[in-house]
Amino acid sequence: MLRSMFIRFITTGGTIDKIYFDALSQFEVGESQVEHILREGLVQFDYEIVSLFQKDSLEITDADRASLRSYIENDEAGLYVVTHGTDTMAETARALQGMNDKTIVLTGALTPARFRTTDAIFNIGCAVGAVQSLPEGVYIAMNGKVWDPARVRKNRKENRFEPIT
Amino acid sequence: MLRSMFIRFITTGGTIDKIYFDALSQFEVGESQVEHILREGLVQFDYEIVSLFQKDSLEITDADRASLRSYIENDEAGLYVVTHGTDTMAETARALQGMNDKTIVLTGALTPARFRTTDAIFNIGCAVGAVQSLPEGVYIAMNGKVWDPARVRKNRKENRFEPIT
Amino acid sequence: MLRSMFIRFITTGGTIDKIYFDALSQFEVGESQVEHILREGLVQFDYEIVSLFQKDSLEITDADRASLRSYIENDEAGLYVVTHGTDTMAETARALQGMNDKTIVLTGALTPARFRTTDAIFNIGCAVGAVQSLPEGVYIAMNGKVWDPARVRKNRKENRFEPIT
Amino acid sequence: MLRSMFIRFITTGGTIDKIYFDALSQFEVGESQVEHILREGLVQFDYEIVSLFQKDSLEITDADRASLRSYIENDEAGLYVVTHGTDTMAETARALQGMNDKTIVLTGALTPARFRTTDAIFNIGCAVGAVQSLPEGVYIAMNGKVWDPARVRKNRKENRFEPIT
Repeated sequence: MLRSMFIRFITTGGTIDKIYFDALSQFEVGESQVEHILREGLVQFDYEIVSLFQKDSLEITDADRASLRSYIENDEAGLYVVTHGTDTMAETARALQGMNDKTIVLTGALTPARFRTTDAIFNIGCAVGAVQSLPEGVYIAMNGKVWDPARVRKNRKENRFEPIT
Repeated sequence: MLRSMFIRFITTGGTIDKIYFDALSQFEVGESQVEHILREGLVQFDYEIVSLFQKDSLEITDADRASLRSYIENDEAGLYVVTHGTDTMAETARALQGMNDKTIVLTGALTPARFRTTDAIFNIGCAVGAVQSLPEGVYIAMNGKVWDPARVRKNRKENRFEPIT
Repeated sequence: MLRSMFIRFITTGGTIDKIYFDALSQFEVGESQVEHILREGLVQFDYEIVSLFQKDSLEITDADRASLRSYIENDEAGLYVVTHGTDTMAETARALQGMNDKTIVLTGALTPARFRTTDAIFNIGCAVGAVQSLPEGVYIAMNGKVWDPARVRKNRKENRFEPIT
Repeated sequence: MLRSMFIRFITTGGTIDKIYFDALSQFEVGESQVEHILREGLVQFDYEIVSLFQKDSLEITDADRASLRSYIENDEAGLYVVTHGTDTMAETARALQGMNDKTIVLTGALTPARFRTTDAIFNIGCAVGAVQSLPEGVYIAMNGKVWDPARVRKNRKENRFEPIT
């Protein structure tokens, strides 16, 4: 019997889902762009998308992280792609470590998915390619690389992820 | 010492690089879009792109496949992403099997990368995420899935990849 | 009483609406992109879109031109934007001259509207700006210019419109 | 002798040129997108782009408006497209009225030009089509319509331009 692949996507906010509101001249987290990106990628696997919160990652609290971990622990899927703001992505990744039979890849974007030029589509693709290829564990997919959360940090000044040396 | 990741991209033509020439009202393989896609993905790993040929995949011959295999065998890289037309992608993948210490992911697109809506960016991202996560071997990344070349075929009528049942 | 502006859009095919079919590896006229472009332009005037035919402009016959002229003559609108293939756009424009109380602007694209980089959106915008600003008559909006159909031709080699000198 | 059309573009900031800086999690006016849009529109007329200031339109002062007017009065061109924030576009337009032999069209965007979905390209096209088709005077091209500055206002709540009734 053929058992088809299932990935659960969890969105938590961050730049990837930022939207610009002219009426307010400000930039806020909007609806998730993941569905749109997966449709454009013509994906043929099964998936569901759940939005747990919509926050800038600097506003994500330990309680939010506990709630995210609890959600995954009590969910039946094996493969997870979590979209997340970049500033505290590594911190959240570390808070998810140590669950059995779960492969979790966190990703996001340095430029909003709604932009004409964005890293969001590439990053979601990279996370999808990685999550089904890796053993259980927690990983970060950013800047085209699959990182160990214990060994990566965001360089805010250069606006990219880099190894902790 | 930190050894940074290196991926060699090899382009061979196919829909992903199709371009439309109004003067001729026809559609031909143009310059590779891989460089453009990697820049948009803000990748931070090392890479080089080499164009071996620019063909519709139905025109790729056994001699072309032998030449592609020979190129990889004599090249020093360990990770390869090969862009290829979709119609004979699985056939080429099978012709590349059995090399030591090489992880090779073939990908392409069902809609040209120059289109506003295209699966090309997602697919290159997926291939990049997979190639660095998988053991040596040859794989296909299409429709968001990483396939064993022996167990996948293109369904031309539905215009998607599917398992051989 | 406020009488709001109404524009009738008539599509006839051409590069602007070309779509690529991978299954056939060919490029054919698809559904009109005008509706999509007008929505992206956030237009606030009233309009209707009618598709009279879907042809490469080299295949448009004198009978097609007569039918297009007859459609406009018997229609109640005053403002028309006609999308058309570029090769015989000037010929069709000349076949529409001489109707009373009709301002007609023909436009199209040198690159399909479905491409990531296309002149289609700009051209439709240019035609819409021109049609409501011009007196009755027939005009061509291409390459950012509003042309008199009697004094313009397509330079196929350079793939642009130019004045007849 | 053929005298080719010349348009001077003046940029003053506004949403059309907004850019998102992840490092700061904010949104500021960036480099003008007009050049990029004109190249995508494959325009064949002569033009120059000058950036007078880069401001949200709520920050534009009477002194800025006087300086813009003075620039145009002392410039030799006849056709102008001015990109401007939407909130005070009508006010600036009224401050430019009454110059001889100048056709001036103000435009901008409700969504930044760097977004995947934006009205910026359509609006610049519309302004270009209008400016060469209209008699001397000052006009606004937004939401697909060419407006008399005395009879239009921005409805901030609905985020669109509408007639003053």
